[in-house]
Amino acid sequence: MTTKYEAFFSRAGEAMRESAIRKMGAVLAQAHDMISFAPGYPAEDSFAWTAFAEIARELLSGEDGSVLQYGPTRGYKPLRDTIASLMGERHITASASRLIVTTGSQQGLDLIARVLLDPDDVVLVELPSYTGAISAFRAVGATLVGVPQEPDGIDLDELDATFLRLRAEGRRVKVLYVVPNFQNPTGLLMGIAKRPRILEWAERRDVLVVEDDPYRDLYFPDVAKEADTRPIAADDANGRVIYLSSFSKTLAPGFRVAWLHAPEPIAAKIELAKQAEDLCSGGLDQRVVYEACQRGILAKNLPMLRRHYQRKRDVMIQALNRHLDGQLTWPEPRGGFFLWAKLAGTLHTDALLEHARQRGVIFVAGSAFFVDGSGQQHLRLSFSAPPPDRIEEGVARLAAAVTDALAAERAARVSR
Amino acid sequence: MTTKYEAFFSRAGEAMRESAIRKMGAVLAQAHDMISFAPGYPAEDSFAWTAFAEIARELLSGEDGSVLQYGPTRGYKPLRDTIASLMGERHITASASRLIVTTGSQQGLDLIARVLLDPDDVVLVELPSYTGAISAFRAVGATLVGVPQEPDGIDLDELDATFLRLRAEGRRVKVLYVVPNFQNPTGLLMGIAKRPRILEWAERRDVLVVEDDPYRDLYFPDVAKEADTRPIAADDANGRVIYLSSFSKTLAPGFRVAWLHAPEPIAAKIELAKQAEDLCSGGLDQRVVYEACQRGILAKNLPMLRRHYQRKRDVMIQALNRHLDGQLTWPEPRGGFFLWAKLAGTLHTDALLEHARQRGVIFVAGSAFFVDGSGQQHLRLSFSAPPPDRIEEGVARLAAAVTDALAAERAARVSR
Repeated sequence: MTTKYEAFFSRAGEAMRESAIRKMGAVLAQAHDMISFAPGYPAEDSFAWTAFAEIARELLSGEDGSVLQYGPTRGYKPLRDTIASLMGERHITASASRLIVTTGSQQGLDLIARVLLDPDDVVLVELPSYTGAISAFRAVGATLVGVPQEPDGIDLDELDATFLRLRAEGRRVKVLYVVPNFQNPTGLLMGIAKRPRILEWAERRDVLVVEDDPYRDLYFPDVAKEADTRPIAADDANGRVIYLSSFSKTLAPGFRVAWLHAPEPIAAKIELAKQAEDLCSGGLDQRVVYEACQRGILAKNLPMLRRHYQRKRDVMIQALNRHLDGQLTWPEPRGGFFLWAKLAGTLHTDALLEHARQRGVIFVAGSAFFVDGSGQQHLRLSFSAPPPDRIEEGVARLAAAVTDALAAERAARVSR
Repeated sequence: MTTKYEAFFSRAGEAMRESAIRKMGAVLAQAHDMISFAPGYPAEDSFAWTAFAEIARELLSGEDGSVLQYGPTRGYKPLRDTIASLMGERHITASASRLIVTTGSQQGLDLIARVLLDPDDVVLVELPSYTGAISAFRAVGATLVGVPQEPDGIDLDELDATFLRLRAEGRRVKVLYVVPNFQNPTGLLMGIAKRPRILEWAERRDVLVVEDDPYRDLYFPDVAKEADTRPIAADDANGRVIYLSSFSKTLAPGFRVAWLHAPEPIAAKIELAKQAEDLCSGGLDQRVVYEACQRGILAKNLPMLRRHYQRKRDVMIQALNRHLDGQLTWPEPRGGFFLWAKLAGTLHTDALLEHARQRGVIFVAGSAFFVDGSGQQHLRLSFSAPPPDRIEEGVARLAAAVTDALAAERAARVSR
């Protein structure tokens, strides 16, 4: 008898869809000589390989058996203390009792979703927003509603208008999800004056704020400074904010070590959810990250990383100006990994992507980031991973793909 | 304004409860000179430290940047191929296209739950069953119903009777969860004749079987042989079985590398669920595990591990016979990490645990493993982690605790 698997899926299982970014990752893994502006991968040649090797050698001496044993669900205690200090440098009053080490920030988003959101609860997100967060919130059946952004981040009037409209419809808005620093996908930096106003709004409307902050350390010194990145959580006196950050962009994503800091009652529930989800994050990984912080490797590398990604942004912008002048516009990235471009004319970036792939370059089409189905004119270009000469070559290929796509569009119009 | 967090929890979040095993882990972390028979930790001195150190040194040379990069959600492809071969040695026809590397088997159980189970769907489990599976299934709101075990595993007549009763009540039984080899917590080995009958039953009743097999390689040569451990999945011609196994008990749990093998449509959904849950498992961890398999470290270590745990079982049984003769009974463990003991008399092991803690020894009280609330006379003793002299000393303490508890019980009876 053939098993009819469709009859076994849960509603959540039925509804699951592949993320556009991960799909591009699969394309990349199969292709030859493909230049990828798609996934936001950090530059591998910037990892602290020598330090990691030395640290791993010491940790694996066998002297401390707990390195490879099951560990506490909340994470390795000395690492949690270290993270609390790191958060202090970010002006947040943190405590280890509110901290959970997660298997990447993706797990943090997923745990938040599971602990807080019932099917049909509403999460407000920036328009556009990070696909990984969208996936995690959708996986529990939550409704995502987008709020437009201005050049300095989410539009506060629209935010409240959206809230009021939903409330009038009888919907429960539980969470606002924001990425204030060098947002994924837009690269936008939320204005410093806007941040406390988000808190006031959340307080007034009794909503929790999920602040996702993986790029904070990667501001570009020529156009941004540390003070521009002050987290919303820094001014959170009443426990409105769940704050997430990660070592994936600053040390390496292969360690899968990130964290979240939540009000204690929420942190306690999240610990239980994590117990059921993976018991604990990797022991060796957490120790390597701890030692890398403790020995100053992270602190020493950050200025180098800022210059590294700032330079790649410059290379990409120069290439775009040279090859695609007038055809694309974008807000200048002031930090992070992404350039968010808008195509002139009527061409859709989903269509462009097919031509780009044939020319040997990929990106993420904008629609993946818009919960309202818009964004067809946008594309996210990650400049973080490829070396400068590949960025240059990738943009040239992209320009050729735009020419191809426009020609195809004209041909289709003529034949109609 | 104080935030009322209770008003924000999802139904799943509200229902979450701490696992008894993890609670014991927290007790252990705080205590001085506590002997733990509680969590099923592998013996740290049996880990292949030298080999791991050498492998990590090579992997972290920086020559292959992908070691610390984001990786495919399904896992490192060469590792998946290796796992398919390992499954072949277990007589299962496996394919990499049906395999997902998970962040520990706990994640595998969680992903299965999310993809298959809606609130109120029924999962049948052995009575008693593994607490981690119970947590994962409960986290999605499923109903767990227990089926008694015989000395050779789950009672097939009771299984079908339970199914029919539930069906008559209008309930949907989707999954049967079993641990056929050296079950957690009982240590029982399911009879070889019973295994294909489970498959026939699942086929007839249109139920999926989740077969959790972490201890299979750790049979004790004096009373069991490889052929006794043939997985149910080995005879699964129609794609009824989702099979899970892990490197946590045979290499080290700190790597968080396990796997599941499912029919393709289910594997595809699980991949999507994992994308939303943690993107991918640790890169370095997967590579170390891969190399440890590839270089024969795993294969070479298994005979040593079998002898190691068999010897610890002997030490525990000898100590129990010496210190607690007539007060405890147990089925002889033929593999794995656990001795499942039953107290004579009316004493509850929850009450005993308090006395044991004061005497400096902990275990997991049986009730944690029974979804029907029974099991008060049972206790799970893990002999895997402590060295022989500590097992000996721990059992002596346990005997003192039993004496204390019986005295307290008598005193309470007299004063009533």
